[in-house]
Amino acid sequence: MKGPLAPLLSPRSIAIVGASGDLRKLNGRPIANLLRDGYAGRILPVNPSYPEIAGLKCFPDVESLPEVPDLGVVGVGASRAVQAVEALAAKGVRFIIVWSAGFAEAGAEGARLEEDLMRVARARGVRVCGPNTLGLTNAFERMPLTFSQYADQPIAAGPVAFVSQSGAFGTAVATSARERGIGLGYFVSTGNQADLTVADVLDEVLDDTRISVVVAYLEGLKDGLAFARVADKAARMGKPLIVVKVGRQPAGRRAAVSHTGSLAGDDAVFDSIVRQFGVLRAQDETQALDLAAALTCCPAAEGDGLGLITISGGAGAMMADFAEDAGLQVPVLREATQAALGKVLRGFASLGNPVDVTGQVLEDVSMLTRSLAIVLGDDQVAVAVMWVQSLHRQADEFVDLLVAFKATAAKPFVLCWLNPPAPALQRLRDAGVCVTDRTQGCIQAAAGLVAFGRTVRMAKRRQPFPVAPTAPARANTERRNVATVEAGELLARAGLKIAPTRLARTAEEAARVAGDLGFPVAVKIESSDLPHKTEAGGVRLSLADAAEVRAAFADVMRNAQAFDPAARIEGVVVQAMARPGTELVLGLKRDPAFGPIVMVGLGGIFIEVLKDVVFAVPPLDEEGALAMIGRIRAQPLLRGARGKPPVDARAVAQALCALSCIALAHPDIAELDLNPVFAADDAIVAVDWLMVRD
Amino acid sequence: MKGPLAPLLSPRSIAIVGASGDLRKLNGRPIANLLRDGYAGRILPVNPSYPEIAGLKCFPDVESLPEVPDLGVVGVGASRAVQAVEALAAKGVRFIIVWSAGFAEAGAEGARLEEDLMRVARARGVRVCGPNTLGLTNAFERMPLTFSQYADQPIAAGPVAFVSQSGAFGTAVATSARERGIGLGYFVSTGNQADLTVADVLDEVLDDTRISVVVAYLEGLKDGLAFARVADKAARMGKPLIVVKVGRQPAGRRAAVSHTGSLAGDDAVFDSIVRQFGVLRAQDETQALDLAAALTCCPAAEGDGLGLITISGGAGAMMADFAEDAGLQVPVLREATQAALGKVLRGFASLGNPVDVTGQVLEDVSMLTRSLAIVLGDDQVAVAVMWVQSLHRQADEFVDLLVAFKATAAKPFVLCWLNPPAPALQRLRDAGVCVTDRTQGCIQAAAGLVAFGRTVRMAKRRQPFPVAPTAPARANTERRNVATVEAGELLARAGLKIAPTRLARTAEEAARVAGDLGFPVAVKIESSDLPHKTEAGGVRLSLADAAEVRAAFADVMRNAQAFDPAARIEGVVVQAMARPGTELVLGLKRDPAFGPIVMVGLGGIFIEVLKDVVFAVPPLDEEGALAMIGRIRAQPLLRGARGKPPVDARAVAQALCALSCIALAHPDIAELDLNPVFAADDAIVAVDWLMVRD
Repeated sequence: MKGPLAPLLSPRSIAIVGASGDLRKLNGRPIANLLRDGYAGRILPVNPSYPEIAGLKCFPDVESLPEVPDLGVVGVGASRAVQAVEALAAKGVRFIIVWSAGFAEAGAEGARLEEDLMRVARARGVRVCGPNTLGLTNAFERMPLTFSQYADQPIAAGPVAFVSQSGAFGTAVATSARERGIGLGYFVSTGNQADLTVADVLDEVLDDTRISVVVAYLEGLKDGLAFARVADKAARMGKPLIVVKVGRQPAGRRAAVSHTGSLAGDDAVFDSIVRQFGVLRAQDETQALDLAAALTCCPAAEGDGLGLITISGGAGAMMADFAEDAGLQVPVLREATQAALGKVLRGFASLGNPVDVTGQVLEDVSMLTRSLAIVLGDDQVAVAVMWVQSLHRQADEFVDLLVAFKATAAKPFVLCWLNPPAPALQRLRDAGVCVTDRTQGCIQAAAGLVAFGRTVRMAKRRQPFPVAPTAPARANTERRNVATVEAGELLARAGLKIAPTRLARTAEEAARVAGDLGFPVAVKIESSDLPHKTEAGGVRLSLADAAEVRAAFADVMRNAQAFDPAARIEGVVVQAMARPGTELVLGLKRDPAFGPIVMVGLGGIFIEVLKDVVFAVPPLDEEGALAMIGRIRAQPLLRGARGKPPVDARAVAQALCALSCIALAHPDIAELDLNPVFAADDAIVAVDWLMVRD
Repeated sequence: MKGPLAPLLSPRSIAIVGASGDLRKLNGRPIANLLRDGYAGRILPVNPSYPEIAGLKCFPDVESLPEVPDLGVVGVGASRAVQAVEALAAKGVRFIIVWSAGFAEAGAEGARLEEDLMRVARARGVRVCGPNTLGLTNAFERMPLTFSQYADQPIAAGPVAFVSQSGAFGTAVATSARERGIGLGYFVSTGNQADLTVADVLDEVLDDTRISVVVAYLEGLKDGLAFARVADKAARMGKPLIVVKVGRQPAGRRAAVSHTGSLAGDDAVFDSIVRQFGVLRAQDETQALDLAAALTCCPAAEGDGLGLITISGGAGAMMADFAEDAGLQVPVLREATQAALGKVLRGFASLGNPVDVTGQVLEDVSMLTRSLAIVLGDDQVAVAVMWVQSLHRQADEFVDLLVAFKATAAKPFVLCWLNPPAPALQRLRDAGVCVTDRTQGCIQAAAGLVAFGRTVRMAKRRQPFPVAPTAPARANTERRNVATVEAGELLARAGLKIAPTRLARTAEEAARVAGDLGFPVAVKIESSDLPHKTEAGGVRLSLADAAEVRAAFADVMRNAQAFDPAARIEGVVVQAMARPGTELVLGLKRDPAFGPIVMVGLGGIFIEVLKDVVFAVPPLDEEGALAMIGRIRAQPLLRGARGKPPVDARAVAQALCALSCIALAHPDIAELDLNPVFAADDAIVAVDWLMVRD
């Protein structure tokens, strides 16, 4: 691998400033680890207290180093770390890992130290990993450059790269991964991310052909768009990106802030946007590892049909429940499939799906693998899950059969085995069979295979990410509300359907415009000082003739002046009354982490009270927009409820694409709210909008 | 234990009809198991093919048995099982377990065999466990009377009773329980439940003083009320009832039907009602065992405040997220608590909650137990969770400290240890420390301790279950719609506030009644043939004077006759217009499993489309009704959204109590819908209702 971070991830030489001669201490353990695993590069300890450490020559200071190492590591206390970075930079080192803690995570003084450290690094053009990191491992290079307890055992290479903002939690995940037989090619702790972020490291390891699955643990995102780009890249490369991010809830956000000083941001925005790029989000370490196991062992599923084979009807029903929770289909198997199963299974077996092999398996364990083969042969089934428990007497034969089947299986399958014998488990893992020991876990794993299939299919059709990044959020710029007609024209030019709207400065003009538009019409006050027209008494609807329009004009002018005597009033807008429909809200807003984002939700209480809203970063194509609409929770209302027609999802998707274009073309638009948009079964139309520009 | 099922659960002698001489076969293994574990009762194998089995005298037929055994077991094929039951009953046996499969779970013919079997049993007054059961274990009596793989190892007694409708899934749970060090006093498989149900067995084992926690696996309920009574009993006894029930989703319900022939019923009703009685519902085997471990190891929590101690800030944030998901509080610790923590912890530790001990723990592991003691001392903290990982070098010392602390701890705590050394885990379990290895699991366990504390507190205050059961659902009875005024009077007598409503047969009478009630009024068609008045054009609202009322009378009469010329029309009801408020729906319906149940939800789309509705069985007291209201998902709308006042929850609760009384007093009411009920911040009032009587 020869990416820009190669000196960090695959250094040929490493200087460790503050190396300890006591190999049991934090600053000594990494040296012992490197020697134990046989790292082939040069290790250069720096510490004036020792002439040598573990047989390696130890240098009194950075200046005395006999070469410019690829990578510097700083393990001295926070107060002395800036000086060490300065010395390494002066020596010519371009990448530095700062193990030291006591920076931004430790309060205001630490934050100042971190700023000092980064000032030096930036001035010298040095890239920093950390501070407050446990270090990293590169198993391909036999390089456990970390004091993480994970490296207390020799590290073994594998196809998974794991990048974690948290050190201790990262250690737990990495250790559990090893326990489960999931090999980590890389494990990188990014700590406070003063410079290099999880996204930066992911971007690099994705290019390593030995890595097929990437896993990230996040607490907050400074640059959401960079993360979105990496997610997009992973999907295009066909490499699943599994993310655990805390701060889903207010209590978790508070905790995350006090940990690495990360602002967790709006989780609804993060969640929407990672799903936009097909990231697999796991809620905890167990789910993340189930997903990693499935995606390292199996190809992605080419559909969402799940076949279930079980030796317990109860477990079958439970799996079907979880499958439906996860949005998978559990199709009734084809007649031909059931007939074939009927020849293998006897007696009281269920053949429909779940397929219940029943206790017969104790007499003939091959029923399981034969059933699995038949179920996977059904054209409706894209992925299968097989659930067994105990089977200690049949374990060896079962494993033989399963390993043989795995070697030829074209479609993915996951095995759930409760209370398996340890040797059987080991043999299955060695053979690349995905095994889990939780009923919920096996369905989550299968759902991950289905979701990743969709990720890849959508990535192939998705527009490329724009080369020029959209404008970042600007602070303290002056904002102005754009006039309704001007904003409406911009929307219409972008392809959004709006109710015809014209400005009128007098009652007579309003009446004439209304006649042109055709009755009935609405009259709304027009003033950039009064963005909330209804609140100001500035809206009159369903006006039937010119007289009503004149009266309404007088009325809204009077109300608006009473509401805010200082408001500059341009007149009124006269608008053709639109056909009512299901109320939607569409819009743009500027997120602190992601920049301009598109949003959609049902109107009224659904967005404001129930927070049922979905976001995406531009660019958005129709398929992506449809997927976004599909993530609105109150789906039944979109399908048409209580006599209302269904919503024309394609029209909504096209409107979202138009908003996405507006976001890219007009980075000065800080906010845009189309509220409400009336959606019918054949079209949508926006009847109110507010556009705010910098 | 001397309950009515004692001969089944603690027999002094067992006859096994169809016993096999091959101890590896299904009908032989239980005999080997009983002998291995040292069952002290008499084992009487019955099979004409053997003179003896495993040194026990074997009898050629039931008639030849030298005594009347407490318990008979039938292990012959389904077709011969009826005859065996007949023979055992004739011998005088009162309890029979039917291991045989091939009954209702195997289709129509099997269902007929099951009916035959039960006809014989009922005629003879014999109670049956099964058919299609794996049998049962009573570890106190060293009695593994089952061919379940669980009994392949000796069984060990413990405080948990586990009753499962599914055999194979039950085996998996029981085996996993043993792996986790959770001792099962009883494990009973109820199979097809032709007679004895999970509820019957729970009712009995709850009375065993050696049992402190009961766990049930369910697929469907024939008698929901019996289950509710057992749940109520468990709560009153202070014994947690943990339930796993499949069929949450349509796919799971289909699978459950094809398994034990159980109709899973409406999961929303089941879920509401078990929560009413404080049952702890687990979604899968892992959660059920985490709950069982916590509740066998710890006292219930006396509040909902959670203290978190962690060595990983990331894990702390994740736990805080899960805690909020589970409805727990994560309070900021008191200043005094933080000051005390500050003396124990140094450097970069977080003290607020989560308390992050950080990597310092590697130097002084006592920081963990000292922090735990301090956090549990905070008056806001009812339960604590401590999260650690690896710690292999410190494990022995850590366990010593924790075991010592556990011996004196008054408040409950749960330990989450990822990748622990096995011996440490064993020592902790032996000492009664609740340990789990999943971050989500530890919070679910703590949530179970909090929920069970609430269960016990509510049970103490709850009205006793009525002695006389409410009327069961009656099929094919004639139903009639009760006249609006008559129904309204019944509601008002029960204490429900309704909009004043009077019948009028002529336009003049309507105008006069309206004058009495005070304008404005509503006029609604009155006909038991037209329960849906609006649909029939039979409703006019906000009538301001007598003339409008007369016109409205003519109008609704004409519309109704046009809508249904055959409808018998009694006149109109005139109703005082009520003050609008948040729309609720309250009512009664008759559930096939639970009988009459009370329901509440927000009106309109919330019940009809989003299925956001909560149920309860009567009797209901105010606290129970408030808890029920608290389970409505769209809580923000009840708290007052978008300028609306909050809903007066106490008034709604009182209305639900009134409905509960109506359900008990009027078992002939098949259905009662109050829709809408207008709820304001100081009162509620029903403006439309439909009552249907048998």
